[in-house]
Amino acid sequence: MTELFSKSARDALLGPLLDSGWEIDSDGDVLEKTFTFGDFTEAFAFMTRAALWAEKWDHHPDWSNSYKTVNVRLTTHDMGGLTSLDAKLARKMDQLLT
Amino acid sequence: MTELFSKSARDALLGPLLDSGWEIDSDGDVLEKTFTFGDFTEAFAFMTRAALWAEKWDHHPDWSNSYKTVNVRLTTHDMGGLTSLDAKLARKMDQLLT
Repeated sequence: MTELFSKSARDALLGPLLDSGWEIDSDGDVLEKTFTFGDFTEAFAFMTRAALWAEKWDHHPDWSNSYKTVNVRLTTHDMGGLTSLDAKLARKMDQLLT
Repeated sequence: MTELFSKSARDALLGPLLDSGWEIDSDGDVLEKTFTFGDFTEAFAFMTRAALWAEKWDHHPDWSNSYKTVNVRLTTHDMGGLTSLDAKLARKMDQLLT
């Protein structure tokens, strides 16, 4: 079962994400990052790849796109906060850029 | 050249869009609509089709997606308001649903 992060798990899993540009909102329940690409085709290609993983894992981002930027907000709505699913999808999104 | 709407063109082109659920923001420079689908796959399929038209016409939406909803905001940034490009893309998005 997916559970809200314990303090130790949170530090271990979220630390590397914070180092790569993700931020946690002031309430501590949303992981957020803005990705910037070369143009719209690159931004939407990223969204398309991320969408396939989101659907595969049944864990979907709240995200917005304006031309070459994509803002992503991750949270586990069912649990009311951050879980390992959010960390997993965040890591995948970063990996798609490498 | 794409120009800001005259009053008469605005009424003629935007009227049918307002009838189909589009709204104009209080400043009069953004067309907005929220589309609701059956699930994420339907919502993202709509975005993918709309993205191809947006790129083809070099006119891109500001939009956000949360699971099965897609919020679309259209404006012509270069002109600082609404133009026929916004009406054209709005009509296309509606057509994609029929």
